[in-house]
Amino acid sequence: MKDFSYYNPTKIEFGRGKEKEIGRYIQEAGITKVLFVYGMNSIKKSGLYDETIISLKKYGVAYEELGNVVSNPLLSRVNDGIKLSRETQVQAILGVGGGSVADTIKAIAVGVKYEGDVWDFFTHKAVIKEALPVFTVMTLAATASEMNGNSVITHDETKEKFSIASVLVNPVISVINPELMASVTKDYLAYSAVDAIAHVIEVYFTASYHSDFNSRLVESIIKSMMSTTEILLKNPSDYNARGEFAWIATQALNGLTPSGTEGGSFPNHMIEHALSALYNVPHGAGLSVVIPAWMKWYKYKNIPQFERFAKEVFGLKKADEGIYALEAWFKKIGSPVTLEGLNIPKNDIPAIAKNAYVIAKTWGYDKENSLEDIIEVLQKA
Amino acid sequence: MKDFSYYNPTKIEFGRGKEKEIGRYIQEAGITKVLFVYGMNSIKKSGLYDETIISLKKYGVAYEELGNVVSNPLLSRVNDGIKLSRETQVQAILGVGGGSVADTIKAIAVGVKYEGDVWDFFTHKAVIKEALPVFTVMTLAATASEMNGNSVITHDETKEKFSIASVLVNPVISVINPELMASVTKDYLAYSAVDAIAHVIEVYFTASYHSDFNSRLVESIIKSMMSTTEILLKNPSDYNARGEFAWIATQALNGLTPSGTEGGSFPNHMIEHALSALYNVPHGAGLSVVIPAWMKWYKYKNIPQFERFAKEVFGLKKADEGIYALEAWFKKIGSPVTLEGLNIPKNDIPAIAKNAYVIAKTWGYDKENSLEDIIEVLQKA
Repeated sequence: MKDFSYYNPTKIEFGRGKEKEIGRYIQEAGITKVLFVYGMNSIKKSGLYDETIISLKKYGVAYEELGNVVSNPLLSRVNDGIKLSRETQVQAILGVGGGSVADTIKAIAVGVKYEGDVWDFFTHKAVIKEALPVFTVMTLAATASEMNGNSVITHDETKEKFSIASVLVNPVISVINPELMASVTKDYLAYSAVDAIAHVIEVYFTASYHSDFNSRLVESIIKSMMSTTEILLKNPSDYNARGEFAWIATQALNGLTPSGTEGGSFPNHMIEHALSALYNVPHGAGLSVVIPAWMKWYKYKNIPQFERFAKEVFGLKKADEGIYALEAWFKKIGSPVTLEGLNIPKNDIPAIAKNAYVIAKTWGYDKENSLEDIIEVLQKA
Repeated sequence: MKDFSYYNPTKIEFGRGKEKEIGRYIQEAGITKVLFVYGMNSIKKSGLYDETIISLKKYGVAYEELGNVVSNPLLSRVNDGIKLSRETQVQAILGVGGGSVADTIKAIAVGVKYEGDVWDFFTHKAVIKEALPVFTVMTLAATASEMNGNSVITHDETKEKFSIASVLVNPVISVINPELMASVTKDYLAYSAVDAIAHVIEVYFTASYHSDFNSRLVESIIKSMMSTTEILLKNPSDYNARGEFAWIATQALNGLTPSGTEGGSFPNHMIEHALSALYNVPHGAGLSVVIPAWMKWYKYKNIPQFERFAKEVFGLKKADEGIYALEAWFKKIGSPVTLEGLNIPKNDIPAIAKNAYVIAKTWGYDKENSLEDIIEVLQKA
């Protein structure tokens, strides 16, 4: 067991209709004015936009609005939010939407309190010391952004997709109502499952110290995620499976699974961020392409854990068998497993690898992932 | 999935030497004076008492002392602590010890802020609205008290062993240094393992709604707890196993495993509290007697989950096989499985059941656990 600090002060309000209480949760935190951030038109169509405003008004919380947050969210919109927050002197940021909205509100929350360029935090030129409190009502389960301090933002011009992590932007309260997540398409459900699995599988293989309990937690997350995904693909209106799916996704990246391990890293996320920054592919779809390729490339570095994975998750024996079983499952649920499946030409590999290598340097992964390594992984995709 | 709120704001500082920073953690929370609570002589012998004082002094934290907290901690000592805290105007309570010390500091913390008798909270005559902040340095892994708001206290005269639960007394920061836990005897190590398993197994069987993920979490905790216990019984100085044991015990009762389930209860704890209140037996030893007896009595109410338990934890098939395997494992690690093993005469069963039934009423369990039911369970012990 390695030393660690575990601290996750986010309160989760889970269940039907809890979004109607968002105004109360914010009011009880002593906040009287928020910036209400959302994505495109889906929350207006679903009625969630109106419900949010009704709840805010009911509890006397004034609000400003910032919509049009796109998937793979952009720095320019973050800067719009920072400007608006300052001009209107909001005390907190409320995000209603999926992972992109959650990413955006956290970046706004740290940017408002910083005199320099908010991108400085993403390039590690500045350290986060202060932030406005953030609240979320989630409409998609995948990123666990509702219970962590992570934010991933894409620079509009350079196409760099960089991230920050600070407990200061862990949401104060996050609402998870599985019913709000029921309208996701089957494609995006599959991508979300891949994303949640990706959140636990990387440290599972790359950590220099594993505990039996950590491994069991990860295997539990993967197995339950697989079974609930299959239930939902057959019956999207299964509330229990939808709820379980959401809660598993939350647990997959809230700090729990890597506690006590050491040296774990996120090379698959790193390579995928390059894919989605350059081609705007869905994050989960990019991950299902990268993960099997990376596993085939990386397996020699940790055969025992790959064998454990094969046995515990699929009841198989050999490292390779586990990798192919996972790849087959990604295919089965409709998530691509080749660059071709993403309509990305193999000729682009050098350019993708170059973008990923910039991220590798930013994340401090360049020692273990050279430009050549990344090219090798992508060639297996 | 059932509705729930999950909120656990305790920060865990896990690792070697972290107890030396306790003064800093308290100072950084803006606190300048604490009540330093501990048990009998063990922390003086081990040097932890001196280290705590050195750390408090180093960071300018003044302190008052309250020692002599016994196992199955008493209300009288809680009242001593409340009185001393008021007289000396401490701002927080620091507990250095095991579960009994943690129980005591939480009861003091709520009592200081309440004009009436602190026992009112335990008898549900009053609701906890305020508390002093509490901090812990744990020397025993078992209760998860380091990461929950639970406290169990025994009334000196009536021998009632009652409990409170409030997030207001979740420790602000808890230190878990596995090295501080290495001196536990093999007996108490076994009792601690039983206690941690008891914390997850009750809701696992009694909940009216189970999710696949909840069940997997519980099975992971039980399996990893069993394997680390066996390692430690052979080699008490195995730091990794000691650390993993501690972290599993923490996860076993910090609110995670029952999230999204419904209707779960703690009938084994209820009956055991009567045993340890009347005979002052170690809590874990009492639990290893009650659990197999209760399982044999309760199994008919949830055969599918008992079969799942047999399969997932022991690789067996039938409900009974799982029960006997767990009972055999308790025996194997040296924890008693009969009343005789606790030197409690079978003739006392009516008196024990009567005490337990009072707890049943206090906890709202009397509908599902009549006096006759409790007698039936105890007769199987």
